[in-house]
Amino acid sequence: MTLAVGIEVSQHPELRKGIDSLAALVDDDLQAVNRLILERMHSPVGLIPQLAGHIVASGGKRLRPILTLASAQLCGYQGRRHVCLAACVEFIHTATLLHDDVVDQSNLRRGSSTANALWGNQPSVLVGDFLFSRAFQLMVTDGSLKVLKILSDASAIIAEGEVQQLMTANNTRTTEEDYFQVVASKTAALFAAACQVGAVVAERPEQEETALEEYGRNLGIAFQLVDDILDFSAHQAELGKTVGDDFREGKITLPVILAFQRGDIGERAFWRRCLEELEQTDEDLDHAIALMTRHGALDDAMALARRYGDDAREALGIFPDSVVRRELIDLVDFCVDRRY
Amino acid sequence: MTLAVGIEVSQHPELRKGIDSLAALVDDDLQAVNRLILERMHSPVGLIPQLAGHIVASGGKRLRPILTLASAQLCGYQGRRHVCLAACVEFIHTATLLHDDVVDQSNLRRGSSTANALWGNQPSVLVGDFLFSRAFQLMVTDGSLKVLKILSDASAIIAEGEVQQLMTANNTRTTEEDYFQVVASKTAALFAAACQVGAVVAERPEQEETALEEYGRNLGIAFQLVDDILDFSAHQAELGKTVGDDFREGKITLPVILAFQRGDIGERAFWRRCLEELEQTDEDLDHAIALMTRHGALDDAMALARRYGDDAREALGIFPDSVVRRELIDLVDFCVDRRY
Repeated sequence: MTLAVGIEVSQHPELRKGIDSLAALVDDDLQAVNRLILERMHSPVGLIPQLAGHIVASGGKRLRPILTLASAQLCGYQGRRHVCLAACVEFIHTATLLHDDVVDQSNLRRGSSTANALWGNQPSVLVGDFLFSRAFQLMVTDGSLKVLKILSDASAIIAEGEVQQLMTANNTRTTEEDYFQVVASKTAALFAAACQVGAVVAERPEQEETALEEYGRNLGIAFQLVDDILDFSAHQAELGKTVGDDFREGKITLPVILAFQRGDIGERAFWRRCLEELEQTDEDLDHAIALMTRHGALDDAMALARRYGDDAREALGIFPDSVVRRELIDLVDFCVDRRY
Repeated sequence: MTLAVGIEVSQHPELRKGIDSLAALVDDDLQAVNRLILERMHSPVGLIPQLAGHIVASGGKRLRPILTLASAQLCGYQGRRHVCLAACVEFIHTATLLHDDVVDQSNLRRGSSTANALWGNQPSVLVGDFLFSRAFQLMVTDGSLKVLKILSDASAIIAEGEVQQLMTANNTRTTEEDYFQVVASKTAALFAAACQVGAVVAERPEQEETALEEYGRNLGIAFQLVDDILDFSAHQAELGKTVGDDFREGKITLPVILAFQRGDIGERAFWRRCLEELEQTDEDLDHAIALMTRHGALDDAMALARRYGDDAREALGIFPDSVVRRELIDLVDFCVDRRY
């Protein structure tokens, strides 16, 4: 059984650079995580490692497992359990990516074809289930009920967030509150859990667990906000996916909500036509971006992302200064200031 | 938040009758399982309990949780943990049903419209993920790592079996061995785990655990064999789904494998056209059934189902005679002799 693709931390050199120094701090562990992922995605059913290998390789920058490894290091952890649990976190993330791409009917992720585009929806759904099960098998090997609780809770919340996102799609009456609820569930819950698990394996006091959980949650919200902003403001080649995807699908993200709220009757009719009826012409995306710019929607969304970034940084205040703490703080800047 | 549908043990009175006396033996516990399922499928995201309620209600006869409850009773268990774990088993089953119907593009399950037919594929995938996560949250509440291992192992094996089934579809070179591998994984693994868990909570010696695991596995194989036979031999009104669904989708089940193996060149060309090219006319299903009958494919598949049924019965031999043991034995007859 050979894998179609190897595991690269990222196919996008600039993305790699952005978290390079944090990744370098945990490099040995991260290599161990990659080896464990490769080993544990094996199955006698050949399509599984083939498809899983594709998504694991194209899924990105290993941000979530790096968070687990770095959090454990911040807590002075000396053991090996964090490697296994970082792999669990990545398996859960990868499973949700597979299902997301089916739900969104996406063809491109980080510049590569999606698994559903290459193999169809059917194996994507089922291999997602497999990876999700593998995550729980690995957690059982680790043997901590506390970790199992954190990650099964996170998994349920992610699914709730994804369903709620479906319900806000094509609905211009979606409120900021709805939006932040979706983001907190579908993205920030796993960031928070990934960080918390690092403190749990180190058996640190609850205060440190909570601090890392808060760091992860706020970082995750900032990360998703920037993702949603970049869908309107990025350069296509840098983004590695198609600019305007959210707009074309009628996803209601914060820039849209702000521009809609601040728009006049004619503008609201425009948003409804584009996002509710999905009746769009080639010029509509540019017009949408122009309206967002005119109303300061992208700037204000960025300001909010920065505020969540500040909260993430602040949460680390209880830890003494160290190289890994500085890198975790720099990671916030990367997530907020990235252009891809 | 109101549920669109209540929970019925089955909408099909004859199905209900078939396992009625076993269900009656564990009736109080089964009601508790139903209440727990209703309670735990709740979510602030309204679509989740709505869709989950639909699949839980139309999903069938609660066979798997009944197996957990009856196995615990057979082992003399006096506590309450089996109720929670029977609900976990049903949540896992329900999650796989939701994903199965998406993968198979089914419109009808047990006489009701499928969730994907009513709400679309997207929420079906995501609510499946939610129910799967809920199962693990419930297991964490129970707190047994052994149970978590049994059910996470079963979940991974189910997903492997489903992927393997995809790969055998439309492939007339599928062997009996391939077929039994798929059946053991996608169906029998959860039957086996459901029964084994009953012995685990009762803290019985490994011999009893293994016996119940074997009972469940053999029963599951027999059950799936009969399912695949009924797709060609049932009366539509009794089956509650469309006769010939497997044929139209090009699924390669045991009756097909046997008829193909025993067919001449012309017959094999027929099978390839119908199942590989999916070029079918209205008369082809009848012709397929005629070929199966001529070659004894349906009878031989039934004989095999009976043999697995015998093995299931035999596995219970180590337990002393009791009402629940007799009912578990009768359940084998029901599963093998059912006509729907």
